[in-house]
Amino acid sequence: MIAEQTLTEQYLRVRAHSEAICRGLETEDYVVQPIADVSPPKWHLGHTTWFWETFVLQPNAPGYRIFHEDFSYVFNSYYETVGKRVLRTDRGNLSRPTVTGVYTYRAYVDEHMSRFLDTDDLSPDLYAIIQLGLNHEQQHQELLITDIKYSLGHNPLLPSIEMPINYPPPSKAAEKKHIGTSALPAQNGRGATGESKGITISEGIYAIGHPHTNQAIDSFYFDNEISRHKVYLNETTLASSLTTNAEYLAFIEAGGYQNFRHWLSDGWAWVKANHIQAPLYWHNIDGEWWNYTFEGLVPIALDEPVCHVSQYEADAYARWRGQRLPTEFEWEAAADQLNWGTRWEWTNSAYLPYPGFITAEGAVGEYNGKFMSGQIVLRGASVATPEGHSRPTYRNFFQPDKRWQFTGIRLAK
Amino acid sequence: MIAEQTLTEQYLRVRAHSEAICRGLETEDYVVQPIADVSPPKWHLGHTTWFWETFVLQPNAPGYRIFHEDFSYVFNSYYETVGKRVLRTDRGNLSRPTVTGVYTYRAYVDEHMSRFLDTDDLSPDLYAIIQLGLNHEQQHQELLITDIKYSLGHNPLLPSIEMPINYPPPSKAAEKKHIGTSALPAQNGRGATGESKGITISEGIYAIGHPHTNQAIDSFYFDNEISRHKVYLNETTLASSLTTNAEYLAFIEAGGYQNFRHWLSDGWAWVKANHIQAPLYWHNIDGEWWNYTFEGLVPIALDEPVCHVSQYEADAYARWRGQRLPTEFEWEAAADQLNWGTRWEWTNSAYLPYPGFITAEGAVGEYNGKFMSGQIVLRGASVATPEGHSRPTYRNFFQPDKRWQFTGIRLAK
Amino acid sequence: MIAEQTLTEQYLRVRAHSEAICRGLETEDYVVQPIADVSPPKWHLGHTTWFWETFVLQPNAPGYRIFHEDFSYVFNSYYETVGKRVLRTDRGNLSRPTVTGVYTYRAYVDEHMSRFLDTDDLSPDLYAIIQLGLNHEQQHQELLITDIKYSLGHNPLLPSIEMPINYPPPSKAAEKKHIGTSALPAQNGRGATGESKGITISEGIYAIGHPHTNQAIDSFYFDNEISRHKVYLNETTLASSLTTNAEYLAFIEAGGYQNFRHWLSDGWAWVKANHIQAPLYWHNIDGEWWNYTFEGLVPIALDEPVCHVSQYEADAYARWRGQRLPTEFEWEAAADQLNWGTRWEWTNSAYLPYPGFITAEGAVGEYNGKFMSGQIVLRGASVATPEGHSRPTYRNFFQPDKRWQFTGIRLAK
Amino acid sequence: MIAEQTLTEQYLRVRAHSEAICRGLETEDYVVQPIADVSPPKWHLGHTTWFWETFVLQPNAPGYRIFHEDFSYVFNSYYETVGKRVLRTDRGNLSRPTVTGVYTYRAYVDEHMSRFLDTDDLSPDLYAIIQLGLNHEQQHQELLITDIKYSLGHNPLLPSIEMPINYPPPSKAAEKKHIGTSALPAQNGRGATGESKGITISEGIYAIGHPHTNQAIDSFYFDNEISRHKVYLNETTLASSLTTNAEYLAFIEAGGYQNFRHWLSDGWAWVKANHIQAPLYWHNIDGEWWNYTFEGLVPIALDEPVCHVSQYEADAYARWRGQRLPTEFEWEAAADQLNWGTRWEWTNSAYLPYPGFITAEGAVGEYNGKFMSGQIVLRGASVATPEGHSRPTYRNFFQPDKRWQFTGIRLAK
Repeated sequence: MIAEQTLTEQYLRVRAHSEAICRGLETEDYVVQPIADVSPPKWHLGHTTWFWETFVLQPNAPGYRIFHEDFSYVFNSYYETVGKRVLRTDRGNLSRPTVTGVYTYRAYVDEHMSRFLDTDDLSPDLYAIIQLGLNHEQQHQELLITDIKYSLGHNPLLPSIEMPINYPPPSKAAEKKHIGTSALPAQNGRGATGESKGITISEGIYAIGHPHTNQAIDSFYFDNEISRHKVYLNETTLASSLTTNAEYLAFIEAGGYQNFRHWLSDGWAWVKANHIQAPLYWHNIDGEWWNYTFEGLVPIALDEPVCHVSQYEADAYARWRGQRLPTEFEWEAAADQLNWGTRWEWTNSAYLPYPGFITAEGAVGEYNGKFMSGQIVLRGASVATPEGHSRPTYRNFFQPDKRWQFTGIRLAK
Repeated sequence: MIAEQTLTEQYLRVRAHSEAICRGLETEDYVVQPIADVSPPKWHLGHTTWFWETFVLQPNAPGYRIFHEDFSYVFNSYYETVGKRVLRTDRGNLSRPTVTGVYTYRAYVDEHMSRFLDTDDLSPDLYAIIQLGLNHEQQHQELLITDIKYSLGHNPLLPSIEMPINYPPPSKAAEKKHIGTSALPAQNGRGATGESKGITISEGIYAIGHPHTNQAIDSFYFDNEISRHKVYLNETTLASSLTTNAEYLAFIEAGGYQNFRHWLSDGWAWVKANHIQAPLYWHNIDGEWWNYTFEGLVPIALDEPVCHVSQYEADAYARWRGQRLPTEFEWEAAADQLNWGTRWEWTNSAYLPYPGFITAEGAVGEYNGKFMSGQIVLRGASVATPEGHSRPTYRNFFQPDKRWQFTGIRLAK
Repeated sequence: MIAEQTLTEQYLRVRAHSEAICRGLETEDYVVQPIADVSPPKWHLGHTTWFWETFVLQPNAPGYRIFHEDFSYVFNSYYETVGKRVLRTDRGNLSRPTVTGVYTYRAYVDEHMSRFLDTDDLSPDLYAIIQLGLNHEQQHQELLITDIKYSLGHNPLLPSIEMPINYPPPSKAAEKKHIGTSALPAQNGRGATGESKGITISEGIYAIGHPHTNQAIDSFYFDNEISRHKVYLNETTLASSLTTNAEYLAFIEAGGYQNFRHWLSDGWAWVKANHIQAPLYWHNIDGEWWNYTFEGLVPIALDEPVCHVSQYEADAYARWRGQRLPTEFEWEAAADQLNWGTRWEWTNSAYLPYPGFITAEGAVGEYNGKFMSGQIVLRGASVATPEGHSRPTYRNFFQPDKRWQFTGIRLAK
Repeated sequence: MIAEQTLTEQYLRVRAHSEAICRGLETEDYVVQPIADVSPPKWHLGHTTWFWETFVLQPNAPGYRIFHEDFSYVFNSYYETVGKRVLRTDRGNLSRPTVTGVYTYRAYVDEHMSRFLDTDDLSPDLYAIIQLGLNHEQQHQELLITDIKYSLGHNPLLPSIEMPINYPPPSKAAEKKHIGTSALPAQNGRGATGESKGITISEGIYAIGHPHTNQAIDSFYFDNEISRHKVYLNETTLASSLTTNAEYLAFIEAGGYQNFRHWLSDGWAWVKANHIQAPLYWHNIDGEWWNYTFEGLVPIALDEPVCHVSQYEADAYARWRGQRLPTEFEWEAAADQLNWGTRWEWTNSAYLPYPGFITAEGAVGEYNGKFMSGQIVLRGASVATPEGHSRPTYRNFFQPDKRWQFTGIRLAK
């Protein structure tokens, strides 16, 4: 967030980006939900709007009338507090409200939000809710991108589409400023042999977590990343660059997906049950590997960082290399020296509460804490992460088998 | 089919009706597939078009170029002979081809078909394929209606929609000519007490099946209804009218869904596993029964024939009344005296081959014969059946738990 | 049943046969339930005993005290009328009551039954219940044999066991009197070419079903086989002998399991989902086919009738041969000329009520009628059928995918 | 392990304890597997024997002949390295080998092991394998107890059985020395109000893990507990005693199982999908709570520590109390002050590798490392843990929904 903007400007800019992501879609693309994890774009656009209506306008804007009483039912997600909800697996079965209806809903709420933000003297609590809403919408922007990719990438026509992501064309990678904190492109940091050089952190005590002294407009944090606390780390070396497609291909060609020894027990069961043989979106056509991207099916770009791997695959690759994944603490301790921001980086840390974590009261309290079981922390950000929505203390999290996000691998030893 | 029409006119008229059914749809409504049985309207429109392209134009129209090579993959249904196909459960995950793309496909094929039908001197085999294609498209017209109803009827907004079906408004039922062979409306045939009068067939030998001497334009039949053969029937009395909502409601209120004694073993397992408590589309709101129709949610019309019941429910209702469902042979023997055409009538006959049934060669041979296991015959026609697509020898078939078709109950004893 | 025996003698003889079947078992063999269809022998022995206690002793024997109040819960099967029951899939999870406990239960009930049968002047209704109980126990005797075979045949040690079945050793087949009504062995009736000669029934009306004028001790029938009625049949030729292993092997070697054209749609789905490649108990070891029998693993006996095939397989084989399965009516009309009794013969008739079928009142009414959905009739009897428990009007029934019974194939055309 | 014993004596004593656990079983009890997690006692007895045969005798004892070639197939567990294995879910379907056969197998291997241990001058590697084998068998001893409890506790007869566990009778709890390292009984450490007093560890660096300088006979450790390393902990207070049944009952009565707010998202889904309402083995009969134990069904003992709860339940209970579960590091840091040993204590730590963890080569390497995903660490020991098989650095682990082990709750704040 850039402090010079008014809150209304911030709000409208975030809202506009959600719609910009969808600009290349056909109406039909807004509707489908090929797997439970992947929500229809229409749903994301409605759900983020419902957030503003439910948590800001309804309780705070005098005389606000909700747009449509059934929308709360349709666009609620997992907030058990706020009424019944459409089963996550049913979202793709709903043709109504229409896309036009959802955009009308957005316009209606945006108009009321603009008026509200312009005139209201916000309490700190309400200000915090609005910042949460902006970050919530940014999270759904990343999901919009990954969900659209999944739907189109599983369509037999494999269509290409315009998508405003910060994806560096291979040849320009070295010149492009990445979207994280560091100025180096993703694929430098390698010596003459092509081996990634290491970044070493020394043994000792590190402070981990967001130093949330005064949450101001330009320093949003989630409740799961505060309670800055001390962690004792051993000396560790992290790879200075992400694992490339070429490196990962060597694992495939060495029979990595056929040898149980490299895999966690759950990972091996996942490989066998789902017949996994390569990262998501890789297609072997007549012996050549192709990759589905927003430009359509293209040959694998060997020097780009591998993408769309599960934590099981990341872990197996690391074992095969005789290394391991970093913990989230090692990653954060080294973050300033890392060139991050193009892939969410799998750690080997379970997503658990920091010392002193407290679940907030009310529906907002359902945001993070209740997911602290069975998930793995990812650090960094990806090409799909909206500008301004990344920081070294950010804790993303998914189950270890998920790979439709822009996930990658950084080795540690 | 009316013989005065040219074949081209017939073709275009059938094709136009498929599109007329969809006239009230939003683009989004064309996409969804809430359950495996219910295909997206877009798919029906594409699949019926694919039939003409694959079985008529490609093999017979010189120089014909297929519209798009991937469409065969997308719009094939269960024809194992003709290449790989999209899994039935995946149809609702496909946003592309778009609705516009499908209509363009239809226009392209229709133009080539018109030209082909106008000029070609059709061989008897080709003529037969074209008649099959017309009847195939008519079958999908009925599915379009039932599938659209299912999707909208399971949307939380319960939208109403214009739908060109021959649905008699309750008050006009007695005046309206039904769409079957008989001139009597559905709900007459009752005595002063409201009890359905019976139609009795005497014991003896009956000829069953279509007398397919010369298949001409006005006498299409499917391969499953020919081989006219003799069947010996005992004396039987069939109800002269269909079971009404009022009569079925009495079964519900008598605890019919709670008492295993009325049910077949498989039916009782189905009731319990799916928590069935009433026909599909019935909603009990604050103690009152409502019914979802294309006009939206309306109160149950007590004197209309009950609709959207499974064969399990039809059978349980009949047992509760101390009666039974007719066999398909009894039904056909009595057909001329019955007032049929508003509901597909569940029989107690398994869908099995008639004596001498032969599976045709090639893909067309997959049309009927391979489904002769695990399904039940329904006779008659429904308000959703296209004009001209019903006859007393027609054998419709579904699994006994299906109820999204316009199915009803006629008792026998 | 032989009329010269007293009812007590009959009872004791039937009861003793159930135990004779289990004589070769280890205690552990009584306990396991590898699939839901296959009940533990212990359960069969207890359930048949529970039948006598529940339907004869409790309501009729003054002062009878039930053996153990929990046994009703454990050994009830599908009688919804009589209290809650152990889920069918849980039977194999119960180590208690022990085998010794079950035999003690049997002895206790047998003692009371003997005393009751010796002294009581039975009413016709009670006499009918006792006949039902004897036939019920005989049905479970066949299930005991097939269930034991399944458990041992799916044990990695493939143990052999003594089993008192009427299984003709291949070389003796031609001399052995079969257990059905006809004196001819299973594998004669073939011409010099080895082709099965046909038995032809002429077109006309046939009376089908048991002529149940006076049910006496020697003429038991089930409620599903009475209501003798007229059926009109076309001329049909049935094979005079059953399909042999050699003939079926030709189907396998011709790629029968790989070609969807031979299969019903449900059958093909079953083949693919379960990776079916041969009849149950066939093992291909280094290119040779072996068969698990009660003697252990033995080479396929080429001239024996094929066994343990599903109706899907029987139907596919028949289509591949350009023939079909007979209907149950054709079978019954020809029964006197057939040499039947070694395999249950799949028909192409769904298991449906005969005209005039009435479900009996009370728990006994759950015996047959409620299963008249989704199942296929088998006619004849098998090597596992107890002596005296077969007749030409007997209607056995199973779902079309079941094959752990001694099922075989007779072609018709 | 007591150092004065010879290795042979140690071996025989451990082996004898496995059989002592089974002394009260009926033959049938050895066979059943009611759920996948619960293996048949027969399988445990065979599998532990297979371990000695496969990893000690076969590779090291000259001239050793394996007992039966199929046993390797039957009794292998999850060692992917060593041949195919019986699916875990199929173990309960195997009636053979018989119980007698398994005991004969044990006697055969014990005789060869005794001879081998008496004469052989063991290499350090072999000595390590033998220690691993002893500890492996002890782990299965605990599983034998929990699996037997599960089978009998899910039998409708709810039988009681003699079981040699260190279960303190409620009245004697205060006098009995527990089986862990501390001399205090489980239920003291409470003030006059009955509230558990706390044990506080101060902020700072703690060394965690086993100090494995020289593994000697009396200091076995697993590979997952070494790599002693430093961890920085905040000040924390752990409850000095475990949560009691009375305390947990208050959670139930406060509607704890009906309020999603207390639960992790996965936990709430588990509660709803499995209709969980109380700890495993609790039965509410006419409003009173009963508990299945090896003595049969007894009233809940209010002052005993709650048992058989999942981590989801432990976590929800802690949240409801406004507290949390300890991490495994907090637990280990406080272990010397804790009175532990009657319940495995759920932590809030995911089971992950310690810094420097290395997976051993060969099949033994499959022991621990590959399970480091999706599981939660439990610390302490339980009444079912064999004597000598517990220490403060021991890391037990299960998925968070598992509760058939003797698991309990210790709060932290």
